[in-house]
Amino acid sequence: MLKAIIDTDTFRETIDVIAALVTECRIHIGADGLKTRAVDTANVAMISLDLSEKAFSSFTATETELGIDITKMKNIIGMMGKGDQLTLELPEGGQKLEMVFSGYQYSVTLLDVNTIRKDPQPPTIELPAKIRISGASINDGIKAASVVSDKIALGVDTAAGIFYMEADGDSDHIRLERGKDELISLEPADVRSLFSLDYLRDMGKVMARANEVEVQIGNDHPVRVSFDFADGNGHVDFLLAPRIEAE
Amino acid sequence: MLKAIIDTDTFRETIDVIAALVTECRIHIGADGLKTRAVDTANVAMISLDLSEKAFSSFTATETELGIDITKMKNIIGMMGKGDQLTLELPEGGQKLEMVFSGYQYSVTLLDVNTIRKDPQPPTIELPAKIRISGASINDGIKAASVVSDKIALGVDTAAGIFYMEADGDSDHIRLERGKDELISLEPADVRSLFSLDYLRDMGKVMARANEVEVQIGNDHPVRVSFDFADGNGHVDFLLAPRIEAE
Amino acid sequence: MLKAIIDTDTFRETIDVIAALVTECRIHIGADGLKTRAVDTANVAMISLDLSEKAFSSFTATETELGIDITKMKNIIGMMGKGDQLTLELPEGGQKLEMVFSGYQYSVTLLDVNTIRKDPQPPTIELPAKIRISGASINDGIKAASVVSDKIALGVDTAAGIFYMEADGDSDHIRLERGKDELISLEPADVRSLFSLDYLRDMGKVMARANEVEVQIGNDHPVRVSFDFADGNGHVDFLLAPRIEAE
Repeated sequence: MLKAIIDTDTFRETIDVIAALVTECRIHIGADGLKTRAVDTANVAMISLDLSEKAFSSFTATETELGIDITKMKNIIGMMGKGDQLTLELPEGGQKLEMVFSGYQYSVTLLDVNTIRKDPQPPTIELPAKIRISGASINDGIKAASVVSDKIALGVDTAAGIFYMEADGDSDHIRLERGKDELISLEPADVRSLFSLDYLRDMGKVMARANEVEVQIGNDHPVRVSFDFADGNGHVDFLLAPRIEAE
Repeated sequence: MLKAIIDTDTFRETIDVIAALVTECRIHIGADGLKTRAVDTANVAMISLDLSEKAFSSFTATETELGIDITKMKNIIGMMGKGDQLTLELPEGGQKLEMVFSGYQYSVTLLDVNTIRKDPQPPTIELPAKIRISGASINDGIKAASVVSDKIALGVDTAAGIFYMEADGDSDHIRLERGKDELISLEPADVRSLFSLDYLRDMGKVMARANEVEVQIGNDHPVRVSFDFADGNGHVDFLLAPRIEAE
Repeated sequence: MLKAIIDTDTFRETIDVIAALVTECRIHIGADGLKTRAVDTANVAMISLDLSEKAFSSFTATETELGIDITKMKNIIGMMGKGDQLTLELPEGGQKLEMVFSGYQYSVTLLDVNTIRKDPQPPTIELPAKIRISGASINDGIKAASVVSDKIALGVDTAAGIFYMEADGDSDHIRLERGKDELISLEPADVRSLFSLDYLRDMGKVMARANEVEVQIGNDHPVRVSFDFADGNGHVDFLLAPRIEAE
């Protein structure tokens, strides 16, 4: 059972973050909010997202699991104005989510959760370098790297005290460095890992809205990117597997 | 013969309204202005448009019929600035319409009117429910319905005192209700008819600019949508045939 | 050898002007700035562009020739913000141009100049009519002509004291006239030449930014279009061969 009211901007932000990675997912509803854990179809990237009941102006729920078609939700939020209120309602055992906003009543049939991949187990990995940086800055680096290559290396140079993003094309090379002045904080370690831009491009677009993003990097290890949204009432962790550099 | 001056914004508005339905039409010129009556190629929708000579800053004409390529007119109005003056000139018996604006002189060969469908006879139908509503509100409902279906039902619920628009998709349902507070006026009757969104989407875009649209509905009957444009000197009636609801 | 700093807006303007005609070119660097002379692949149009060292905030160079991939430069300037500083650096005999701006370091491999067409010899031609006009005005005429045809005639009517642009379509005709009031200056001569809009459309877009463009026309002769850019520190000459009018 779910009966909740949320402003449309917060709802849109939440759907956009999930849509950066998957087109459908299981959303777990509980008394303290909702959460989703999902991997993309190629098993390369994982998302862990939590949205507290504090993000809602009203929230009553019993434990339940919803199968959500994220692509369809993107279409529906395209109808929503800014600053409107959205009412979500699902009766106990119901299979249709009622969405009401500014005179619209959408009745959305949920996906059967058994047809959606089970929640992944978040791996426990230690990533030695930790960078805090504006999301827009990361997104700029991702866009610049896309001009010359389909892969990007993220790394830290402890001697220079910098975080860097770089990409090698057939004939060109691009490197973006961020030192103390442009970083919020840096826990350095000499690390470097390579990633596919196919994934980072979509993630970069949602990161760009966050004032502060935490990036954790290791050597040929996954990267973890975490940031808050929904005025601090939402939190997301992206985990992206590395590409191994060709010799 | 025609010799007239009109501001480019009014001319653009007029062409846009006609272009919502047909790509070519006969325009009848008379001493008191111009009018067009046209049906789309599939005989599903009809437009009756009148533009008074009052919409022009200068207007001299004898009775004549012009074959207009609306698609080409759309290209030409793309060249016009805002707030310019457009001079239209056609000599007696001429086949080339001269269009002059801000230093441009377009000489447009008219279509042979015999190659364009004859004017349809507007049917006399009584539609019991009459709703006055902002055009933007109708257009919002049309866009929302397009997310779930290619058909939309328009109806009135006399008990609840509301005008509604609703659409049924394979698994989803959307309903937009407008009560007294959001309507300009309502002459109620328990009616409901279904329409193709293919036609309404284009009509919705031009309706969206009108502060007030009159919608007349019956039971499995056509819908009539009427509104003024050109500061009240133009008037248009759209008539759209219903789709029969599948059982 | 080259070591120079330029603001990104001026650099973008320069690349955009060259890109109107060619996708790669030789750029000659000297102590007093840079220049390029290039013809398009079909030998129909020629560009002569000069950018003075005054356009740079710092400029040190020895004579050298760079093979530049203009398409790639367009991608890179897409990354640049407004009002940033761009540092260009090429060591003596180097084949990689370093481009540094707002924390980005692009290392761009130059094209082998031997694979790029040699500089054309600018022809010495006398064109009797000379018109000074705003670039936006020319571009408007080019866009209007594109609606009816793929060719445009440029001419001067000395009796009427006007510069005109006109185009003939299958059934339509358009003519744009500019008299004394709309021209900056006119050295008249009864001339008229026809040109392909394929070329003029791209040139028109960059001309549109210039307050003043000088157009020189003859009878069935090339047209020369010249204007300044980079706050007067850059100058470009486009020369476009005529099309012969079909009888």
